[in-house]
Amino acid sequence: MPEHNPFEQVVAQMMKDDLFSQWLGIQVLEINEGYSKITMQVRPEMVNGLGIVHGGIAFSLADSAFAFACNNRNQLSVALDTSIQFLKPVHVHDTLTAEAMELHNGKSTGLYLIKIFNQHQHMIALFKGTCFRTTKKIVA
Amino acid sequence: MPEHNPFEQVVAQMMKDDLFSQWLGIQVLEINEGYSKITMQVRPEMVNGLGIVHGGIAFSLADSAFAFACNNRNQLSVALDTSIQFLKPVHVHDTLTAEAMELHNGKSTGLYLIKIFNQHQHMIALFKGTCFRTTKKIVA
Amino acid sequence: MPEHNPFEQVVAQMMKDDLFSQWLGIQVLEINEGYSKITMQVRPEMVNGLGIVHGGIAFSLADSAFAFACNNRNQLSVALDTSIQFLKPVHVHDTLTAEAMELHNGKSTGLYLIKIFNQHQHMIALFKGTCFRTTKKIVA
Amino acid sequence: MPEHNPFEQVVAQMMKDDLFSQWLGIQVLEINEGYSKITMQVRPEMVNGLGIVHGGIAFSLADSAFAFACNNRNQLSVALDTSIQFLKPVHVHDTLTAEAMELHNGKSTGLYLIKIFNQHQHMIALFKGTCFRTTKKIVA
Repeated sequence: MPEHNPFEQVVAQMMKDDLFSQWLGIQVLEINEGYSKITMQVRPEMVNGLGIVHGGIAFSLADSAFAFACNNRNQLSVALDTSIQFLKPVHVHDTLTAEAMELHNGKSTGLYLIKIFNQHQHMIALFKGTCFRTTKKIVA
Repeated sequence: MPEHNPFEQVVAQMMKDDLFSQWLGIQVLEINEGYSKITMQVRPEMVNGLGIVHGGIAFSLADSAFAFACNNRNQLSVALDTSIQFLKPVHVHDTLTAEAMELHNGKSTGLYLIKIFNQHQHMIALFKGTCFRTTKKIVA
Repeated sequence: MPEHNPFEQVVAQMMKDDLFSQWLGIQVLEINEGYSKITMQVRPEMVNGLGIVHGGIAFSLADSAFAFACNNRNQLSVALDTSIQFLKPVHVHDTLTAEAMELHNGKSTGLYLIKIFNQHQHMIALFKGTCFRTTKKIVA
Repeated sequence: MPEHNPFEQVVAQMMKDDLFSQWLGIQVLEINEGYSKITMQVRPEMVNGLGIVHGGIAFSLADSAFAFACNNRNQLSVALDTSIQFLKPVHVHDTLTAEAMELHNGKSTGLYLIKIFNQHQHMIALFKGTCFRTTKKIVA
């Protein structure tokens, strides 16, 4: 990812230290102000005890997309409340793509919707996240 | 865990195939009808890009506790809608314990609250989960 | 509202018996399959004890929009889980418009997002609703 | 309600101006620090178009209980994100009681659970609320 814009630079720095997103195999596809689009492929060690992929995997992908969207103005923001609705089961080897859109950019809080699709363009989950904005920076 | 009761047997079978819960290092502490208590220790590869533990880790622990509680009557139930509120940051080497309690056991749906504590008995997150009940069994 | 289509007919019948939506002063603007757009004006008796409009008013408007969207295929559906995020305060005499969009139309459940705007086209709240579908009809 | 304590005084002042809670017929049963218990009786004009009580009524009762609990230290707090899970239908003439408990009292935010029971002591809904704390007072 060429670092054309300041929003991408913040996410590149976050991603560099984000060992869990690296374990998930997350690739950053597109970053704009208050926006992110990321992808990953599901591996066998991500299943739960019912033969489908653990709900924590789709949540974690969406939570990373949320963090990359709500922090990319270089104002450190922390997740306050999030919810996820599961619409379709996810299977091993599926490719998941999460797109985070900003619905509200307040002084103290922000609101984001993240849609997660599989490789058939079916929405498998919808994530809603509220963040709390601090006064700290991410990139000095 | 000695398998004293049928609820523990269902969870033991779920846990055996739950590769992601195994990756997380989850240990089952207590299982009763509609109830579960599980624990894990946070490892360095679970951090996010902001120097604290990725929100997906606490969610995943809670989601496993939810699954173990809502499925343990041997009636296959799937997560429909879940939310998690983050109250305190989690750090590497923290020990997290999730306790799932059943608030409603309906014919088609169930409602569960999962409290997640760290080793200082501080609640670090609160998870709420709604499941949809199928007619399938887990242990034949 | 001329009743051009079967979806409008279902909502017209629901609205006829919906005494609380009538108390709120709800007007139906547009009904399509899995979609609704409704409006109301805020009156003085709708304030809370902090000088702004009670959160239950915006919720109730959104909940009616949700009901009109998720039931209008004439398949009785009941609200299971809903959440609302409050973005801006609402004041007496504001005109609120709620637009309900269907994100998922499953066999047993459905997922809807309802955006609520004031007369300045500012989004004042975002509502998410999950419904459970029964086999009953609304219009015989 | 005799005003034994400062928490009750704040709620008494809120309730005096809360015209919508008055319309609902809310009675305050008990107020303690970060806690409230209130009740109301459902009237015929509170039904929806499906023959049961409108979801906005139970939400509004819970939202008032939430406001009375999270503001009663005399620090003005506003609802940020709330969710409600509907467990059983409510009928005309039911008596509903909402009890708000504080799960977290942070500097900037607070987290509350509100359980709503009918006259048969059945939990008909569970409400979760996050508030944002301002620096303003309610009682001067």
